[in-house]
Amino acid sequence: MKSAKIIGLLTDFGTRDYFVGAMKGAILSVCADAKIVDITHQIEPQNISAASFTLRACYRNFPAKTVFVAVVDPGVGSSRRAILVETTDYFFIAPDNGLLSFIFNERENSDAGAENFFRVFELTNEKYFAKKPSRTFHGRDIFAPVAAHLASGVAPEKFGAEISDFVCFEENRPRKISGGESEAEVIHIDRFGNLITNLTRENLPEKFSLQIGGRKIERLREFFAEAEKNEVFMIFGSAGFLEIAAYKASAKELLKVETGAKVSVFVTN
Amino acid sequence: MKSAKIIGLLTDFGTRDYFVGAMKGAILSVCADAKIVDITHQIEPQNISAASFTLRACYRNFPAKTVFVAVVDPGVGSSRRAILVETTDYFFIAPDNGLLSFIFNERENSDAGAENFFRVFELTNEKYFAKKPSRTFHGRDIFAPVAAHLASGVAPEKFGAEISDFVCFEENRPRKISGGESEAEVIHIDRFGNLITNLTRENLPEKFSLQIGGRKIERLREFFAEAEKNEVFMIFGSAGFLEIAAYKASAKELLKVETGAKVSVFVTN
Amino acid sequence: MKSAKIIGLLTDFGTRDYFVGAMKGAILSVCADAKIVDITHQIEPQNISAASFTLRACYRNFPAKTVFVAVVDPGVGSSRRAILVETTDYFFIAPDNGLLSFIFNERENSDAGAENFFRVFELTNEKYFAKKPSRTFHGRDIFAPVAAHLASGVAPEKFGAEISDFVCFEENRPRKISGGESEAEVIHIDRFGNLITNLTRENLPEKFSLQIGGRKIERLREFFAEAEKNEVFMIFGSAGFLEIAAYKASAKELLKVETGAKVSVFVTN
Repeated sequence: MKSAKIIGLLTDFGTRDYFVGAMKGAILSVCADAKIVDITHQIEPQNISAASFTLRACYRNFPAKTVFVAVVDPGVGSSRRAILVETTDYFFIAPDNGLLSFIFNERENSDAGAENFFRVFELTNEKYFAKKPSRTFHGRDIFAPVAAHLASGVAPEKFGAEISDFVCFEENRPRKISGGESEAEVIHIDRFGNLITNLTRENLPEKFSLQIGGRKIERLREFFAEAEKNEVFMIFGSAGFLEIAAYKASAKELLKVETGAKVSVFVTN
Repeated sequence: MKSAKIIGLLTDFGTRDYFVGAMKGAILSVCADAKIVDITHQIEPQNISAASFTLRACYRNFPAKTVFVAVVDPGVGSSRRAILVETTDYFFIAPDNGLLSFIFNERENSDAGAENFFRVFELTNEKYFAKKPSRTFHGRDIFAPVAAHLASGVAPEKFGAEISDFVCFEENRPRKISGGESEAEVIHIDRFGNLITNLTRENLPEKFSLQIGGRKIERLREFFAEAEKNEVFMIFGSAGFLEIAAYKASAKELLKVETGAKVSVFVTN
Repeated sequence: MKSAKIIGLLTDFGTRDYFVGAMKGAILSVCADAKIVDITHQIEPQNISAASFTLRACYRNFPAKTVFVAVVDPGVGSSRRAILVETTDYFFIAPDNGLLSFIFNERENSDAGAENFFRVFELTNEKYFAKKPSRTFHGRDIFAPVAAHLASGVAPEKFGAEISDFVCFEENRPRKISGGESEAEVIHIDRFGNLITNLTRENLPEKFSLQIGGRKIERLREFFAEAEKNEVFMIFGSAGFLEIAAYKASAKELLKVETGAKVSVFVTN
């Protein structure tokens, strides 16, 4: 099948300035039939880990050959590199600042023979950039045109040399503290005030409870409407992580916690 | 003419999380040439009636065969059903929680022979869902793929059995209180602070005045710029309802009212 | 090459009401294969100059024949005209309220023979409007359908007569105060809190410093990451203007200034 030329955008540019419009224009100027999909432009300014979480939580829903462009880029214009990552199914374009660590970490955790699982290229071929790239807006001048050329069929090798010393952050996994107890944390809070932890089913015993902000949470629910209004409960959320939620209310507000808050896990019987 | 495969999205998911991206990815994975149109994702969380108002106010502007997906879904994962409504011109996919009442109520108020005006199907055929649908995110796992299959040409009957006991709220019509006086209410407040009432031209005598929050409003304007700055006036708005507005100012702030505020209507001579 | 039927939208409608959905529906009802691009809908309500700045900063990134629709329209329904501007490369549709002044001013500043650089048409041909246009929502009833017809190939002349008395604001250029000193201003503040001034490289001597809100700013940086955290510095931004920025911080908050703030320029050696 012919590629659908889908380009997914995720940035911290917000939606009230000209930034997103400029990127879209730059994409369409190279590839007029690109299908541009806004994932979000509301990443908190310069919050690389929020960008990582968000892209990781939805990229697998997209069709094969989708090109993702993720721009949260406090180092724009400096010597930080720009990279293109090719995986079996997708392409990712981003600054080399750790934003794509989840891709690299997934290979480590994968069972399959990993040799061809991903390749990383440094974006250096100016032929595929805007004419005179600014030093302040690579989203428009480098990432957007590269994505559009890639969607148009240019091979990943054409954009620059393959590299292996890309920036990769270790995954933020729950830390074992003592027998039957470990420490996890809140890695994201969504619009509804649900607290997303870094705990997955695999990290957890069959029965467990949490403690956060001095409060014990013991109830595990299957879906939201099972709970009573304002009840605070645990639920395995749609991004694959254990969440702390409150039905028809905001767990964030009820518990008064922020991203990064510590969560203690206890094995129960 | 071939259908344009337009899918209009309206949710309370906001635009800063991965939710909307995940839904769009899920749609494009089924129907890569779908044309996805964001109506809004800023419905107040779990406000079914705001979702209803917004969809009702714009769906007729879309071309025939548009598929609308409306997800404001506090009961997700519970036994509440998911439905597909086919009308003469459009398709609507939503939880069966009353969000689409305006469609059902429109038939009642319609002059035309109504037999085939709409059909409602319960979404039960898992063939058109994601592989293992979550119990917390039907937007991604049920509504999005069903919409994409429908846009691709799957017949509405294929998604489940026709039903007639769908949830339908009665329309919120102005209530007659006494001779020459009736009580209406503010059903929506827009970005500009205009107060949209549930009054239409058909509800109203030729000459009338309103009272809201202790304030009398007597002037009916044809367009905004006719008024003076800060003047509070009545105007028949673009959604078909009588609105209370203030030129270059917010009627909401000037009158200090919220959605649901009572409005008294007086016949004048 | 066949036109890509790209329609770029810029409004102050926000994204939580039905306004944008209605415009998109109206466009697709006329031209089902239009490619609608949201530039922004978050222009501050009725702020014509913010709309101007934003469109001006990104329109050149779009491919030739793009149709831009800019609706910030406090005079909607009054006798203010609606216009279509054709330039060598683009089409612009907007109320005749000065929003497109930057196009008209660019001709004046252009070196090239300017005769055919742009033409302005008043939108009067109701054949291309909605059936019964409202007096409150020309975005949906006039601007959107006209844009769609234009993208579909209708010639600009068809929409109404050419005019030359369109509204044009003088450009807000830095004002010379005395020898070696001039007064400029902040014309926009972006999401990151960067202050965009009306100064360009052409306005400025080789070496200069600024004063704003009692604070002297002497450092000119090439890119953001060059600076230290909280450092306030000058930088030529991606929209072509001198900006006052703070690395990993908001210059707006550090300096406590708003759009319109005066900036003094000093020649240095």
